Amino acid sequence: MAAEIVNTIGETDDNFIDPAFALHRGGKMEVSATVPVNNRDDLSLAYTPGVARVCTAIAEKPTLVNDYTWKSNVVAVVTDGTAVLGLGDIGPEASLPVMEGKAILFKQFGGVDAVPIALACTDADEIVETVVRMAPSFGGINLEDISAPRCFEIEAKLQERLDIPVFHDDQHGTAVVTLAALRNAAVLTGRTLGQLRAVISGAGAAGVAIAKILVEAGIGDVAVADRKGIVHDGRDDLTPVKRDLASFTNKAGLTGSLEKALDGADVLIGVSGGTIAEEAVATMAKDSFVFAMANPEPEVHPEVARKYAAVVATGRSDFPNQINNVLAFPGIFAGAFQVRASRITEGMKLAAAEALAAVVADELSADCVIPSPFDERVAPAVTAAVAAAARAEGVARL
Amino acid sequence: MAAEIVNTIGETDDNFIDPAFALHRGGKMEVSATVPVNNRDDLSLAYTPGVARVCTAIAEKPTLVNDYTWKSNVVAVVTDGTAVLGLGDIGPEASLPVMEGKAILFKQFGGVDAVPIALACTDADEIVETVVRMAPSFGGINLEDISAPRCFEIEAKLQERLDIPVFHDDQHGTAVVTLAALRNAAVLTGRTLGQLRAVISGAGAAGVAIAKILVEAGIGDVAVADRKGIVHDGRDDLTPVKRDLASFTNKAGLTGSLEKALDGADVLIGVSGGTIAEEAVATMAKDSFVFAMANPEPEVHPEVARKYAAVVATGRSDFPNQINNVLAFPGIFAGAFQVRASRITEGMKLAAAEALAAVVADELSADCVIPSPFDERVAPAVTAAVAAAARAEGVARL
Repeated sequence: MAAEIVNTIGETDDNFIDPAFALHRGGKMEVSATVPVNNRDDLSLAYTPGVARVCTAIAEKPTLVNDYTWKSNVVAVVTDGTAVLGLGDIGPEASLPVMEGKAILFKQFGGVDAVPIALACTDADEIVETVVRMAPSFGGINLEDISAPRCFEIEAKLQERLDIPVFHDDQHGTAVVTLAALRNAAVLTGRTLGQLRAVISGAGAAGVAIAKILVEAGIGDVAVADRKGIVHDGRDDLTPVKRDLASFTNKAGLTGSLEKALDGADVLIGVSGGTIAEEAVATMAKDSFVFAMANPEPEVHPEVARKYAAVVATGRSDFPNQINNVLAFPGIFAGAFQVRASRITEGMKLAAAEALAAVVADELSADCVIPSPFDERVAPAVTAAVAAAARAEGVARL
Repeated sequence: MAAEIVNTIGETDDNFIDPAFALHRGGKMEVSATVPVNNRDDLSLAYTPGVARVCTAIAEKPTLVNDYTWKSNVVAVVTDGTAVLGLGDIGPEASLPVMEGKAILFKQFGGVDAVPIALACTDADEIVETVVRMAPSFGGINLEDISAPRCFEIEAKLQERLDIPVFHDDQHGTAVVTLAALRNAAVLTGRTLGQLRAVISGAGAAGVAIAKILVEAGIGDVAVADRKGIVHDGRDDLTPVKRDLASFTNKAGLTGSLEKALDGADVLIGVSGGTIAEEAVATMAKDSFVFAMANPEPEVHPEVARKYAAVVATGRSDFPNQINNVLAFPGIFAGAFQVRASRITEGMKLAAAEALAAVVADELSADCVIPSPFDERVAPAVTAAVAAAARAEGVARL
C-alpha cells in the first residue's frame, strides 16, 4: 500500500486524497521574527550596529546568552532516524515529519520553541560529538526515535558533557505518563504502588525507563521481559543495559516466559509491539491493569483486556486512557527552562508524573486515569511541578 | 563601556536604557506551527498515526522530503563565532544575536525559514563533518562570520559533499551587492566594467570574493591589497588562497603599497577595517568610485571621499548607497529554493547582481546606485533572476 501512495503522489499529485499528505505539503512549521524589522531604525537595533552591543555583553558575561537570545527557550529535537514510531530504521530524512510534529507539539502545548535536527550518522560517539558541537545554540536536547541500546549511551554521555537538559522522550516521556496513569489506577482500586507487581513486555528504551521510574516510585515488584523471556541475573545473553535492569528489577526472581510472569501479576505494561494472548491476561490478579501501549496495534486489544482488567490504557486516541507523551515532554521542558535547569533529574520526572496524575484526581474512573492530551490544565501543572522540583534538587539556575 | 553595560544589566535590569537590549530580551525569533493542532483529528494527521504514512512515503521515495517537510525552505545559519561583525573571535554563544538577526532577515525579506547554528568547534574539518551530519534537516547552508582562511576551505568542502546550496554570505553576499553597485556606478558615468581598474583593500573573505566576481563580470583590472601591500605573484608570504588570488588579479603587475595602486585607479573598495588617507584617495582617476564598506568606521569618511569621487558607497545606513548583504542573501536562497537548486553557481551570483542593479536602473544618481534594503522590489527581482539562472546552468531540480 505504501508503494501505491508514493506512486499516487508522484503521478497525480493534485488528486491525492489522503488528508495527511495534504496537511504535510510544505511542512508543518515555520520560523518568524518576534521583533519588528520594518525600517532602518528596527534594523539598526535587531541587526547592525545595535546587535554588536548585545554580542559584546554576552562575550563578557556568557550567561547573558540566555537573556538576550532564544537559546534558553529552544530545544533541538535530535534523531538519527533509526527507530521511528513503529517504522524502524527509516533514516533521517524520512523521520523529519515526526520531528516536525514533535516540534510543533512542544510549541503548542509548552510554549517551547523546537527545531528538528535529523542526523546523517548513527555511531553513538559521532552523534554525541555532533550534538555537543551544536549545543551552544540550544537550551535543551530532546533525543527522539534513536534505537536501543545506543540511545542509553548517547543520552548519558551527552548529559555528562552538557550543562543543559538532555531528555530521551521515548524513555522518560513514556515512563512519566505511564507512572501517572498507574498512580491513578492504584488510587481508583484502593491500593498503593507498593502493593502492585508489574510485568513489562519489552526491554527497549521505553521498557527500561518505565522499569526504572516504577522502582523509584516504590512499585512492589516489576519484571521486564524481552523476546527471550524474563530478564534475570541468571541469563548469560544480557546486554549491559539489561544486566543493569536485572540488578534492580524482578525481586521475586522470576525466570521463563512473559506469560509465566503474568500469572497473578497486578499490572501488564506492553511496550513491545508484539501480541500477548488473551489466556495469559486471564491469569492476572483481580483488579489488574493492562496498559497495552504498542501503536497502532496494542499487544492486547482493549476490548479483550477489559474482560479481565479493572483499568485498560493504550497508546491510541480512539480508546480511553491514552498514554501519550505529549502529556509530559512540553511541560517538562517548559518547567526546566523556566528555572534554567542544568539537567532533568529523576526527581523532576517523578514530580511531573505526580502533577500529571493529580490533574484528574477528582474525576477518576476506569476510563479516566490520565488526562486527555488536550486538557489545558496539564502543561501548566507539569511545568510548575518540574520547576519546583528542579529548585528542590538544586539544578535550577534561576 | 561594554563592561558597564554588563554590570548595568546584571544589577538594574529594569532600568537599563539601551533599546538594543530591551529589544533582544528573550531573543528575536520563534518557531510556530503552520497547521492546526487543536484536537484529536488534527493530532492524528499532523502526528501519529497519520504522520507515519508520510514518513513511509519519504523512506520509499527520498525526494518527497522536500515536498512534505519544511526542509526545502529552511536554511541553517552556521557560524563558529570567530569573525563576528567587527568584533572578531567572540565565540559561538556571543555570536547568536547576529545569527538570529540573520535568520529573521531571511524570513522577512525572502520568506525563507532559517535556524541559527553556532558551533562549539573551530577546526575546519570538524565544522565540515558536523554540518554534513546535520544537513538532512536543511535545504541550504549559510555560513556566517567564520574567519579566513578557514571559511574558504569549509565552504568548498561542504559544497563538494552536499547537494544543497552552501553559501558563505560574508564572501558572496558582499560580492553580489558590491558588483551591483559598481555596475550602476559605471552606467551613471558612461563606462563599462571593462574600462575600470579597481583596487580592493582587504584580502579576507569579502575581498577575495569581490575580486573573483569582478573578474567574472569583466572588470578591466583589479588588484587586492592586504596588510603587507598588493597581492602579486612575486610575494613569498602568500597563503594558498592569496596565491590563487594573485593568479587571476593584478594584470598590471603592480607591486608595493595600497596607496601606490590607488594612483590613477577608478575604483576603491574597502573591506579591511583600516584607514585610507585622504591624500591617497586624491590620486585616484577622475570620476572615481569609493566604496568604503568597513563598519562602523568606513576606511574613508564618505564626506571626505565625496570631495574626489563621483560615487561613494558605505556599509552604513546613515549615508547614501548602503552596501548591505540583506539586498542579496534572502533572494539568492529564495531563488535557489524555488527551483530546488543543488548549489549556488557563479552564474546565479552574477544574475543576482544584475537583477539587483536593475531595480534602480531608472532612478540612477550618485546617491542611488543601489536600492534601499527596504525596497520591496529587490527580493522578488533577485529571486526570479537566481531561479532562472539556476535553470540555465542546469542545477535546478524543479
